[in-house]
Amino acid sequence: MPYEFRTQRRIEFCDTDQAGVVHFSRFFIFIETAEHEFLRSLGTSVAAKLDGMQLGWPRLAASCEYLSPAKFEDVLDIRLLVMRKGTKSLTYKFEISKDDKLVARGQVSAACCICDPEKGFQAIPIPSFIMEQIEEAPKQE
Amino acid sequence: MPYEFRTQRRIEFCDTDQAGVVHFSRFFIFIETAEHEFLRSLGTSVAAKLDGMQLGWPRLAASCEYLSPAKFEDVLDIRLLVMRKGTKSLTYKFEISKDDKLVARGQVSAACCICDPEKGFQAIPIPSFIMEQIEEAPKQE
Amino acid sequence: MPYEFRTQRRIEFCDTDQAGVVHFSRFFIFIETAEHEFLRSLGTSVAAKLDGMQLGWPRLAASCEYLSPAKFEDVLDIRLLVMRKGTKSLTYKFEISKDDKLVARGQVSAACCICDPEKGFQAIPIPSFIMEQIEEAPKQE
Amino acid sequence: MPYEFRTQRRIEFCDTDQAGVVHFSRFFIFIETAEHEFLRSLGTSVAAKLDGMQLGWPRLAASCEYLSPAKFEDVLDIRLLVMRKGTKSLTYKFEISKDDKLVARGQVSAACCICDPEKGFQAIPIPSFIMEQIEEAPKQE
Repeated sequence: MPYEFRTQRRIEFCDTDQAGVVHFSRFFIFIETAEHEFLRSLGTSVAAKLDGMQLGWPRLAASCEYLSPAKFEDVLDIRLLVMRKGTKSLTYKFEISKDDKLVARGQVSAACCICDPEKGFQAIPIPSFIMEQIEEAPKQE
Repeated sequence: MPYEFRTQRRIEFCDTDQAGVVHFSRFFIFIETAEHEFLRSLGTSVAAKLDGMQLGWPRLAASCEYLSPAKFEDVLDIRLLVMRKGTKSLTYKFEISKDDKLVARGQVSAACCICDPEKGFQAIPIPSFIMEQIEEAPKQE
Repeated sequence: MPYEFRTQRRIEFCDTDQAGVVHFSRFFIFIETAEHEFLRSLGTSVAAKLDGMQLGWPRLAASCEYLSPAKFEDVLDIRLLVMRKGTKSLTYKFEISKDDKLVARGQVSAACCICDPEKGFQAIPIPSFIMEQIEEAPKQE
Repeated sequence: MPYEFRTQRRIEFCDTDQAGVVHFSRFFIFIETAEHEFLRSLGTSVAAKLDGMQLGWPRLAASCEYLSPAKFEDVLDIRLLVMRKGTKSLTYKFEISKDDKLVARGQVSAACCICDPEKGFQAIPIPSFIMEQIEEAPKQE
C-alpha cells in the first residue's frame, strides 16, 4: 500500500508577488493539489461520494517552513508522505524542493467529512475504499 | 508601544471553494493583510525603503489551526499579537473569530530583509523605525 | 432606484505579481466584490435564496481594459453602473480609478440562476426583490 | 512560424467557488499560463531579459465569454492563437473546451515593455527573438 507520492509543478506568473518570489500562501495550494493527485492515483477523489453523499476533507491544521525562495518558471518537486492515518483524519507531511535543494516543508491534517449543504461538515470514519489503499510512512521518513 | 492589532474582514465570494466555506489557504492572506495594516497603523509599511533599498519580509514559517468554518459574507475579527521580536525577525500570533467564536488561530514568522533584484533576499536587523514602535506581547496572552 | 454604486479597496500584497503591479486577473475580483457590496447595500445578497432554492449569478462575459498600473497599498475607487437590466441577466459597467486617474474599466454580465447541486445552473427571471430595487443607468453615463 | 499553441490543464480545488464551478477570474490565469507555455515552447520566456533589462508584458485588455461551467478535476483543452502581431503588442485569442464542448473563449492583449523598478513600464518594439518566431493566425481561424 502506498504511503508516498511524488509530483512536479511549474511556478506560474500568478504565483509570484512583488518581492519576485512565490507568495507563501501558494505553497498550501501546491500541497493540496498534490494530495488530490495522490488520491486520484489511487482511483478515487477528494470529492468522492459515499452512499450518494458528498465527501470532503476540511483542513484541521496546516503548517509550512520556508527554506529557500521559489521563482517564476521553477519546476518544483513535491513529495507527500502519509504521516498519520487516523480513523477520521489523515496527516500528510510534504517536502518541496528544486534541484534537490529544499524549498519548503510542512504538514497538513484533514478530517474526513460528509458535506451537507444544510448541516455543514460532519466527521465520519474514512471510507474503506480510501483506508484500505494507503498506509502510514515508516517513522524514520 | 503596541503589541496588538485588531481588524475586520468580510469574506468575499472568491475566498470560498466548492465545499461552501473559505479555502484554508485564504487565512494566510487574511493574516498577512492584517500584519500590513498593523505596520501602516504605525506609520510605516511592509514595503518601506531603507537608505534607498527595498525592504521585504519573506516568511520563515506559517501555521494555522482551523476550528470552525467561515462562510461567504461573514465578517471576521482578526487579532494580531507580536509574539516574538527578534533582532532580524518578527513572529506574530493571530486569532480569527466570528461573533466571539474562534475560527482559526496560528502564527507567522517573517525575516526582515533587503530585497535586491539581483542578489535576492539579505537578512538585516529590523530598522529602528519599526523596532522602536513595537514590543512583545506579555507571555500570558 | 439606484443604478450606481461606489466603493473603495486597498491593494493587498497578494494582489501583486513580480512585475510589481496588481495582477490583471485581480481586477475581476475587485469588480465582483463591488457588485456583491452593491447587492448588500440593497438589503439582499448575491447568494440569496428564493423559495428555499439557492440563487447564483454565473458570469456570461467579463472584460477589462487596463489603462494605468495599480500598486501595493494603493486605494482604488470603484464605480459600478447598471448598464443593462434584462429579464434574466444584469450587465454592469465599472470604472476603477486612483486619485481621479482611470486605472481600468470594463463590463461584467451575469445570469440569474437557481444553483441546483445535481442539475447545475438554471436561468430564471431576476426575482422581484432585486428587480424592483435597481434600474438602468442613463445612456450618457 | 507558429501562430497556434495547445495545452491542457486540470481544474484544481482552489479554482472552484461555492457555486461548485470554476471561478470566472481563474480563466484569465489559465490563459496567461498557456501564453507563457507558448513562449517557453519557442525557447524564450515572458520574463526574458533584453540587454540586461527585464522584459514584461502588462495587459492592455482581457475579455472572456463563459459558455459552459467547468468543474473540479475537469481537464480543459486550451487553444491559443496569435490574432494580431503588432510592433509593440500581441493579441491572443483563446478557446477553452472540455470534451470538444466550448467552455470559454476570449482575447488578451499585452504590450511589450521594459520593466524598470523606478520608472515603471516603458513600451518597446517586440524584440526580434520573439518577433521572428511567431506569426498571425489566418483570418478565418
